Amino acid sequence: MRLRNKPWADDFMKENQQIVELSPLSHKGTWSDVFGNDNPIHLEIGSGKGQFIANMAKQHPEFNFIGMERVKSVIVGAIKKVKEKEVSNARLVNENAVDLRDLFAENEVNKIYLNFSDPWPKARHEKRRLTYHTFLTQYKHILKPDGEIVFKTDNQKLFEYSVESFSKFGMLIEELTLDLHALQDPLNVMTEYEQKFSQKGQSIYRCRAQFQ
Amino acid sequence: MRLRNKPWADDFMKENQQIVELSPLSHKGTWSDVFGNDNPIHLEIGSGKGQFIANMAKQHPEFNFIGMERVKSVIVGAIKKVKEKEVSNARLVNENAVDLRDLFAENEVNKIYLNFSDPWPKARHEKRRLTYHTFLTQYKHILKPDGEIVFKTDNQKLFEYSVESFSKFGMLIEELTLDLHALQDPLNVMTEYEQKFSQKGQSIYRCRAQFQ
Repeated sequence: MRLRNKPWADDFMKENQQIVELSPLSHKGTWSDVFGNDNPIHLEIGSGKGQFIANMAKQHPEFNFIGMERVKSVIVGAIKKVKEKEVSNARLVNENAVDLRDLFAENEVNKIYLNFSDPWPKARHEKRRLTYHTFLTQYKHILKPDGEIVFKTDNQKLFEYSVESFSKFGMLIEELTLDLHALQDPLNVMTEYEQKFSQKGQSIYRCRAQFQ
Repeated sequence: MRLRNKPWADDFMKENQQIVELSPLSHKGTWSDVFGNDNPIHLEIGSGKGQFIANMAKQHPEFNFIGMERVKSVIVGAIKKVKEKEVSNARLVNENAVDLRDLFAENEVNKIYLNFSDPWPKARHEKRRLTYHTFLTQYKHILKPDGEIVFKTDNQKLFEYSVESFSKFGMLIEELTLDLHALQDPLNVMTEYEQKFSQKGQSIYRCRAQFQ
């Protein structure tokens, strides 16, 4: 999608520092201090306009949520969504191409959500897919032992690729769901994309995979 | 499906002993002698009317194929199919509920095909699914190290269950395909069911999984 430039995004972020962390690298190893409690930390990579993280934070006050979104003009939407929900257990991070090991200490994160990641369909872009093994190495490092990834997508090819990639990395495929919405799981929180695609009758795939 | 009783099936099998093995347990460890060569052995469990094994045998003279089918009135169709193809590298076995370790020695088989197995959708019938862990234990025993299972089905729930079951057993998910016929793989040999379902536009799922 073509994104409009939002020159006011920097100012907006500065005004909302209770939600968006402007110096996230300084919190490596001390994210619990940011939240003021020791609740488990759930990380979403690619939060988009924030519907998922805002609703998850509201639904699960027992967890702390961190949402990463690299596009400045998109993260402002997520800030607004989190603000509307009036939750204190969600933080956003606007970082591009940061190594997650610079942002989190070993074992600092309990769960990672990858929602509707860019499929990068061309073979030569395989390395950019968020389920490529170099990313899995980062996830494994920052996750607690037995930590899990919850991966949702509507993209068949990315899904196939990712399940194979998880397995090749030695992960356990705990759950494979080829038509998530047929399950009518009341606890499933939808992203904006998910809502749009499933309304069109498109299948949504989900895989939960655990490091071992 | 309701199957008509075919009282002449026993006679038909006796007349076609060059295709159907009437004392298969006696060949444990010596299947190469049956074929008269040391080519790799590929086993199909549940051959149905035999379209898959007959066409695979024709397409791959470099492999030996053994097809198991427990229903007598169905295996006669498979015998006819194999006969028509005039191949010498396919044998059929009419066994019901045999432990595969009584039929094959350790490491005797190179590849196992599970095609459109009975989904046994009820939870209490889980143990009957051919991808339940007790069956995987048998497959692992008779397969050579790194031996693989190629599993095809149109049943979404069985597919999800099976991929999870493979992974929990410690198998590597080498390949996941959620729409096999979209690939237009000229080497894919279809079963009768597969042809019927894919003509209706239904997705066919395939998973290749390897013991480690």
